[in-house]
Amino acid sequence: MFYHVKELQYRAKPERPDPLFAKQLQEILGGQFGEISVALQYLFQGWNVRGNGKYKDLLMDTGAEELAHIEMLATMIARLLDGAPVGDLEVAAKDPVIGAILGGMNPQHAIVSGLGAMPVDSVGNRWTASYIGASGNLLADFRANLNAESQGRLQAVRLYEATTDRGVKDMLSWLIARDTMHQNQWLAAIYELEAKENVVVPSTFPRELEKQEVSHVLFNYSRGNESATGRWANGPSIDGNGMFSYVENPVPHGKIPVLKPAPPYIHDTLPSVLNTNLVPPNMC
Amino acid sequence: MFYHVKELQYRAKPERPDPLFAKQLQEILGGQFGEISVALQYLFQGWNVRGNGKYKDLLMDTGAEELAHIEMLATMIARLLDGAPVGDLEVAAKDPVIGAILGGMNPQHAIVSGLGAMPVDSVGNRWTASYIGASGNLLADFRANLNAESQGRLQAVRLYEATTDRGVKDMLSWLIARDTMHQNQWLAAIYELEAKENVVVPSTFPRELEKQEVSHVLFNYSRGNESATGRWANGPSIDGNGMFSYVENPVPHGKIPVLKPAPPYIHDTLPSVLNTNLVPPNMC
Amino acid sequence: MFYHVKELQYRAKPERPDPLFAKQLQEILGGQFGEISVALQYLFQGWNVRGNGKYKDLLMDTGAEELAHIEMLATMIARLLDGAPVGDLEVAAKDPVIGAILGGMNPQHAIVSGLGAMPVDSVGNRWTASYIGASGNLLADFRANLNAESQGRLQAVRLYEATTDRGVKDMLSWLIARDTMHQNQWLAAIYELEAKENVVVPSTFPRELEKQEVSHVLFNYSRGNESATGRWANGPSIDGNGMFSYVENPVPHGKIPVLKPAPPYIHDTLPSVLNTNLVPPNMC
Amino acid sequence: MFYHVKELQYRAKPERPDPLFAKQLQEILGGQFGEISVALQYLFQGWNVRGNGKYKDLLMDTGAEELAHIEMLATMIARLLDGAPVGDLEVAAKDPVIGAILGGMNPQHAIVSGLGAMPVDSVGNRWTASYIGASGNLLADFRANLNAESQGRLQAVRLYEATTDRGVKDMLSWLIARDTMHQNQWLAAIYELEAKENVVVPSTFPRELEKQEVSHVLFNYSRGNESATGRWANGPSIDGNGMFSYVENPVPHGKIPVLKPAPPYIHDTLPSVLNTNLVPPNMC
Amino acid sequence: MFYHVKELQYRAKPERPDPLFAKQLQEILGGQFGEISVALQYLFQGWNVRGNGKYKDLLMDTGAEELAHIEMLATMIARLLDGAPVGDLEVAAKDPVIGAILGGMNPQHAIVSGLGAMPVDSVGNRWTASYIGASGNLLADFRANLNAESQGRLQAVRLYEATTDRGVKDMLSWLIARDTMHQNQWLAAIYELEAKENVVVPSTFPRELEKQEVSHVLFNYSRGNESATGRWANGPSIDGNGMFSYVENPVPHGKIPVLKPAPPYIHDTLPSVLNTNLVPPNMC
Amino acid sequence: MFYHVKELQYRAKPERPDPLFAKQLQEILGGQFGEISVALQYLFQGWNVRGNGKYKDLLMDTGAEELAHIEMLATMIARLLDGAPVGDLEVAAKDPVIGAILGGMNPQHAIVSGLGAMPVDSVGNRWTASYIGASGNLLADFRANLNAESQGRLQAVRLYEATTDRGVKDMLSWLIARDTMHQNQWLAAIYELEAKENVVVPSTFPRELEKQEVSHVLFNYSRGNESATGRWANGPSIDGNGMFSYVENPVPHGKIPVLKPAPPYIHDTLPSVLNTNLVPPNMC
Repeated sequence: MFYHVKELQYRAKPERPDPLFAKQLQEILGGQFGEISVALQYLFQGWNVRGNGKYKDLLMDTGAEELAHIEMLATMIARLLDGAPVGDLEVAAKDPVIGAILGGMNPQHAIVSGLGAMPVDSVGNRWTASYIGASGNLLADFRANLNAESQGRLQAVRLYEATTDRGVKDMLSWLIARDTMHQNQWLAAIYELEAKENVVVPSTFPRELEKQEVSHVLFNYSRGNESATGRWANGPSIDGNGMFSYVENPVPHGKIPVLKPAPPYIHDTLPSVLNTNLVPPNMC
Repeated sequence: MFYHVKELQYRAKPERPDPLFAKQLQEILGGQFGEISVALQYLFQGWNVRGNGKYKDLLMDTGAEELAHIEMLATMIARLLDGAPVGDLEVAAKDPVIGAILGGMNPQHAIVSGLGAMPVDSVGNRWTASYIGASGNLLADFRANLNAESQGRLQAVRLYEATTDRGVKDMLSWLIARDTMHQNQWLAAIYELEAKENVVVPSTFPRELEKQEVSHVLFNYSRGNESATGRWANGPSIDGNGMFSYVENPVPHGKIPVLKPAPPYIHDTLPSVLNTNLVPPNMC
Repeated sequence: MFYHVKELQYRAKPERPDPLFAKQLQEILGGQFGEISVALQYLFQGWNVRGNGKYKDLLMDTGAEELAHIEMLATMIARLLDGAPVGDLEVAAKDPVIGAILGGMNPQHAIVSGLGAMPVDSVGNRWTASYIGASGNLLADFRANLNAESQGRLQAVRLYEATTDRGVKDMLSWLIARDTMHQNQWLAAIYELEAKENVVVPSTFPRELEKQEVSHVLFNYSRGNESATGRWANGPSIDGNGMFSYVENPVPHGKIPVLKPAPPYIHDTLPSVLNTNLVPPNMC
Repeated sequence: MFYHVKELQYRAKPERPDPLFAKQLQEILGGQFGEISVALQYLFQGWNVRGNGKYKDLLMDTGAEELAHIEMLATMIARLLDGAPVGDLEVAAKDPVIGAILGGMNPQHAIVSGLGAMPVDSVGNRWTASYIGASGNLLADFRANLNAESQGRLQAVRLYEATTDRGVKDMLSWLIARDTMHQNQWLAAIYELEAKENVVVPSTFPRELEKQEVSHVLFNYSRGNESATGRWANGPSIDGNGMFSYVENPVPHGKIPVLKPAPPYIHDTLPSVLNTNLVPPNMC
Repeated sequence: MFYHVKELQYRAKPERPDPLFAKQLQEILGGQFGEISVALQYLFQGWNVRGNGKYKDLLMDTGAEELAHIEMLATMIARLLDGAPVGDLEVAAKDPVIGAILGGMNPQHAIVSGLGAMPVDSVGNRWTASYIGASGNLLADFRANLNAESQGRLQAVRLYEATTDRGVKDMLSWLIARDTMHQNQWLAAIYELEAKENVVVPSTFPRELEKQEVSHVLFNYSRGNESATGRWANGPSIDGNGMFSYVENPVPHGKIPVLKPAPPYIHDTLPSVLNTNLVPPNMC
Repeated sequence: MFYHVKELQYRAKPERPDPLFAKQLQEILGGQFGEISVALQYLFQGWNVRGNGKYKDLLMDTGAEELAHIEMLATMIARLLDGAPVGDLEVAAKDPVIGAILGGMNPQHAIVSGLGAMPVDSVGNRWTASYIGASGNLLADFRANLNAESQGRLQAVRLYEATTDRGVKDMLSWLIARDTMHQNQWLAAIYELEAKENVVVPSTFPRELEKQEVSHVLFNYSRGNESATGRWANGPSIDGNGMFSYVENPVPHGKIPVLKPAPPYIHDTLPSVLNTNLVPPNMC
């Protein structure tokens, strides 16, 4: 259950309106790695944990915090949109700044949301749950979280570089710091789980059931051997179960497949029309 | 540039058709963490690397391999659909197996693809590029890749558990082994980049520009202190830049925001109608 | 800012697992009118209110409550999935119940979420922000909310009818009651705003700027005059600004449009090829 | 069955081309609350009515009219795109108007549609049936329709404010008037159904089956009591079945849920790894 | 402008309900090549024709007819859903037919649409305008239309094979016949345009501006020479502008690209970290 | 299985950066008819061919080539983004070119991809598999391919017109030429299949099972007889099975449908409320 307080986690007030930056800032609110994504990803992971304890609590702590970040960004975006202009481009373009704003801002910020934030990214794609996941396997999911916080901090930093507004920079410096913590915390949790299990997810699948002869092999499918020099092609594997090796000229281990004709009620192209010319000898 | 050979990387032949499993197997072909996702993710990351060398080569090697995995799965799915039934449920349901197949299979496998694989997941969602990313920052992206291979191997293992077909299990044991390698290789690359840079992405943003006082703090937003006992709340931070701490009762650092009225041409609800009742003292 | 407590708003415990009902119940979690939709819709409306006071507070109260409903449903779904079977249909179908479960359950509940709830609807469509809106005009938005609660309660009632599990029915009886309240509250707020403004949204657009001669006219575009007998075609209009009327044989008020040819650099079909045969006399 | 006449319902001719406004005007053609949405929503509702008579006829009348509105907007947009420029920005930007047009117009209007209207909104999102609904319950659906016409008229009004073109304003004044009628007509139909049934949808669910003790209660989940002063927290409920009340400090009615471990074949994190630290006493 | 009559173009009445077939039949209503797709595709193409005459009229004739087909299918689906069961699977599965229906039907047909048709395909994907197009070039668009009618008739035929209901077959035999006509008519229009222009779209781009040395060459990128025997690799090209030829071992015509480093404010991986190992001699 | 070489099929180097054109060029990389679409469409068609021989080989040859085109476009876009500016619009807009770039470029090219290409179209819609198809019927699918190459070449030509950069034009002249070949080759394959089968897809459905009396009839649903003069309304049908005819005043062949009431557990509007006024005599 959730309680809300109206105070913000941290202040969200720009020095001046900037409708174009409002559009860009939507990326970390409603984009692939924005705050809606991390909030819902952490909450769903938390709700699905089959057990209680510190991992579940950590997920719920952080999920609830990300809701507060959505709120901060929504507030900042509404303020960046204060008094955003509408009007004829031909008139407006006499002032190049106004012209560029009218051409560059997200028109839905005026027409649809009435100068409010939206659950969309910086080009207007609506947020979708295709961005997130919760698998029931915490090591897998904490890696998803580390990725989300890495991409998210990178985007926040790029936005920081793109403005001179001290109010915006102030808020971003808070969010960037929290992303620092969140990368740190998922790393700490990952290290702990990797130590308890193994670095390969899931750790519970018996290794003898996989084709272990290719479990530590790099196949060179892109001409050029630069990748042969990497750690991933030399020495013991990271999971401690083998030695890395490199195959310069990988060959197929299967044959050319031949599919059976479809039954007549499917109305695929008939075999008589398909008319296979030649069947090479190595077909299966 | 790409060359194709018609032999499969590894064989993809089931013992017998199974249209319901064909539907399920679509998950690792066209789902969020399926082979289309990793193929296109690695290729786009590779094409966007601004420099050449071993990382780019590794991305292209692996991206090209994943194309071969799409091919294997597409072949397997087509064969699992061999002779899939259509027909009246009422007639079919006299045989419970046929009834369950007709009710459970993906109807598009008959109606749309004519017994062929589709770029969809196990419930029929079309593949979307919302699943993938390439940021230009390789540490961020290799974490995305590690996540994808972790989720992907987990799903392949779950599918392995769900069938007794030895042909399907044989192919899955190959794919699972390759996922083992791919987790290993991205881990190797990640460790190398973390050593060269720092564990926090991006490493190039000056730490003094972020609010460092909250860069290593866990805020307890979900009642219960289980998370206070974790490594993430105690000891030096993973990034080596501070000490973890825990705030049991986090308070807001901002005030209640009050947004300015919209201009009349936006036709939001008028301030006179909105009629704020009481303004608490701590509004900003 | 948000705080979470781990206790549920109301209990969410079924008598027994039921993976097929778990799939159906996803509709009111992650469907078009599910709890994610109302939670995010109310929160975004609240954050975008340009003023404070009772309407904003009501939105935040209710938005926070809907987060608790997501949590209840996620918990219930995870429990309905307890021990959900996987396995060969041919084997399973010997038990018709198992066969129907394997064919009918959402396969992603096993393969993707590891027996956890997902942000999807009952057929597996991922939740999308295309479902929701916040316009800055509260009368418009409260109508969106009334609609969402009407559709949502209707769906909850249909699900109530589809199960005999007393635990599920118990939880649904709570959610249905809350939907009763939420319909009541949005109605109360709507009546208040309609009294302050007018029933037509937005009320701030000068009526003389619209073509008032068609502001209260029903055009009969579907042959048959049943609709002529309704209140909407007789008597004073609801907005108090005119009298309803009915046009049995509506005629066009415009002419046949003729579009100018495209410039050559667009490479549309050339006018010489388009070759208009005859131009009727009433083209504009 | 449908017949088409080539004359427009009302004229759709701008004074001059304006590619940027063409992009904006797409919102009410192919956006969430645009004419495609209302046309298909009303038609599907009409086709699904299980009975005939005035409600079905009203839906079909209005659905057919909305098809004519799509046509008017498509025509207007094509004309606003007449002779739209393409070309190098660097060259074009010497004329600030041309520069702003090239930067601000929807590039698909040139590249994809060849200066034609598209089934997209003002940022280019393709229209999706996720926007619409038809539930079989007319009171629910008429509320959906009232919402659509409210949002739609609001957007049309905002677009009216954003142009000085008299031809565009003329057409919008027609559409705005029709939205006035459509809000009026759905209100009239809603009042009639509410009088026959009840204001709560669906009216056919026995009230004793819901948890009536919370059917008229406002829970204060967002700190601050402004909402306690509203009509929704005082006096008889709108549905006539109870009295509104207000709970200032809502407490959980459920316990902390503990989920059972997943079976081994799911490969979730093992209970031994999850390792619950402490189980608070009030878990269920 | 459109007029509607309530009579159907052709009857749509099944012999008996069949909720599973209702789900499958959705494919040709709301799927990629269903009736919504062709209706809106033809209408948008018609509205965007920059000229009048027979092509535009043909598009509008056929677009309006497809609206009638949506209506027929919506009616048929509602009737196939008459009295569709809901209820506990465990109870229901004692009757294998009921069990298979509950497991196999689209649950939204009960929960969401109240036994009505929906704008979705046979697995429940919502219809999206991503399925359709209108380019302004009629030869291109008529090819899109021919494709849509080919895929659509194929799907209708597959559905015809999947039922024994004489009422359903009767209606499908009408739709299949209309698809026959529509394939015929688009072919007739295509032949006419190809004769006036050229078979290559667009015909207005000067051939000397393309790299004509590869305008009629088949590159063998998939090992095996079966394709060398086709008409497309031998003899005069179809467009009459050259001779087909075949390149057995295609080589790259470009060099290995090296991208410049990103500016620091982008925070991509630094060149010093990327650390290119070896630069092959043929990079550009 | 696939091998990659790092050399490009053809060079992809602009004369100078142009972030706005980079955004536009995304259309033919990740748009509806872009290179991702054709690559995956041809590959899936190839993998699903139930037989081997020249058609399958042709599909695989061309699918592999399209992967190389994605690569060329990705490279070109990254270079067009070299050093793309970020920054305050107000500062930037003093230089109208910079202002127009900041307003007009895709902000995700800076924030999300770090100056790299993305799998999106020119307005930022993520690529979706809803764009493509593989039906198992090659004549249907080759028509899909001909359509894709027609739309794709048209878009490439429009982009060619929109730039003066000789490097971009050089690359486009290659792609346009390849589209010429691909239109030619699918035409050649189509003619061959049409000769073997019939022009109507699928050719295997017995003609006597369709309502042949309407298989060659044009119904005039859009007032005006221009379409009566076309080839499609006169003379022998293209499929050789009949004579075209024209019906000036098409009448319904069905009756007004009346749907049965829904069962009570669906909670649709009750028949007593629906209250059909009058039932016209020709209802079925």
